[in-house]
Amino acid sequence: MKVKVVTNILKANTRIAEENRRVLHERGITTINLMSSPGAGKTTLLARTIRDLGARIRFGVIEGDIQGTHDAEVIAALDVPVIQINTAGGCHLDANMVQSVLPELPLEAIDLLVIENVGNLVCPAEFDLGEDAKVMLLSITEGDDKPLKYPRMFRECEALLVNKVDLAPHLDVSLEKIRGDSLGLNPALQVFEVSARTGQGLEAWHAWLEKKCASSLGRG
Amino acid sequence: MKVKVVTNILKANTRIAEENRRVLHERGITTINLMSSPGAGKTTLLARTIRDLGARIRFGVIEGDIQGTHDAEVIAALDVPVIQINTAGGCHLDANMVQSVLPELPLEAIDLLVIENVGNLVCPAEFDLGEDAKVMLLSITEGDDKPLKYPRMFRECEALLVNKVDLAPHLDVSLEKIRGDSLGLNPALQVFEVSARTGQGLEAWHAWLEKKCASSLGRG
Repeated sequence: MKVKVVTNILKANTRIAEENRRVLHERGITTINLMSSPGAGKTTLLARTIRDLGARIRFGVIEGDIQGTHDAEVIAALDVPVIQINTAGGCHLDANMVQSVLPELPLEAIDLLVIENVGNLVCPAEFDLGEDAKVMLLSITEGDDKPLKYPRMFRECEALLVNKVDLAPHLDVSLEKIRGDSLGLNPALQVFEVSARTGQGLEAWHAWLEKKCASSLGRG
Repeated sequence: MKVKVVTNILKANTRIAEENRRVLHERGITTINLMSSPGAGKTTLLARTIRDLGARIRFGVIEGDIQGTHDAEVIAALDVPVIQINTAGGCHLDANMVQSVLPELPLEAIDLLVIENVGNLVCPAEFDLGEDAKVMLLSITEGDDKPLKYPRMFRECEALLVNKVDLAPHLDVSLEKIRGDSLGLNPALQVFEVSARTGQGLEAWHAWLEKKCASSLGRG
């Protein structure tokens, strides 16, 4: 008997992520996987982005949290379809969790699906959910040493929003070091310095997002 | 043959953690497992605590990071014995990692061993390292919704340092909500509102730490 050798079998999460990606593209949906440490401002950024771009892009949102519905309620108040996934202790979303809730969303009425991951700068970076792009926030209050300490997240993402820059005068932090170390890890990274609270710097992020919506679906 | 039924076998991590605890107590060492989100200020707090209490307590430190030696270098500059564990992507320290590095520390010259865990508000809470007490930091820049979103960490800890309170005038955050929700999850939690940068509120933390050192070793 000859031994059969089978290589390149996808792991379960990767296979389900590719199914998600196919389903979402068939519906004409661009998907963003939004990640950060706890409290870096994902929900505040997302709510602001929806208010600013909601007239041109139809949003849908999946909120990932260990427990509770706080963030989903913030989004629901903007009249955007939203589903809350509670991981019950789990430290990241995976592709199967996303697949399980897709039937609950009105996919025919969504252009851009934003999946807000569990607040965690480590584990979520390892799991493909079926997104078109991974995007991360880093709050400047976390310090300028974070790119070199959490390199995988910075390498996996296409865009980095350096958030809470309105607090820079009150902190000992170098925006230049954050930018330089991030680009050192990932030279193709798009870096936006923003304040989701004041709106500072969001125009470039909006432009990137609109372009991403068009190009990921071949309409760019 | 009668079937033997064996229950209550400890998981590997728990068994090794108990070995660590026994070894450390035999040496007269009190151990703190210090946890938080990335950038909440663990290293700044620890360096300040060492400077403030170093004349009365002999410190030793284990630094946990995904990669790099930034934090260990900060501690080493204070002439305190320190070992850096790099988890190479791992999102938390475990008891075996700690056991592996204990022989590298001068245990006979340490009263208080502080293990600074990987910056992560989720996974580290699940792993006993052999410590006498789990202690967490929450930076107020992370927002006042964190206790209800990350309940396990708040339930596992004996003490919570609410850090960066010097930034409160620049933030939309309620210290009362943080305190109230934290105590709702864990009524026995000791809550200290501090600024590791300015030194505000650290006296009560120092007093708690000194008492912990004495009582955990039966000297209280």
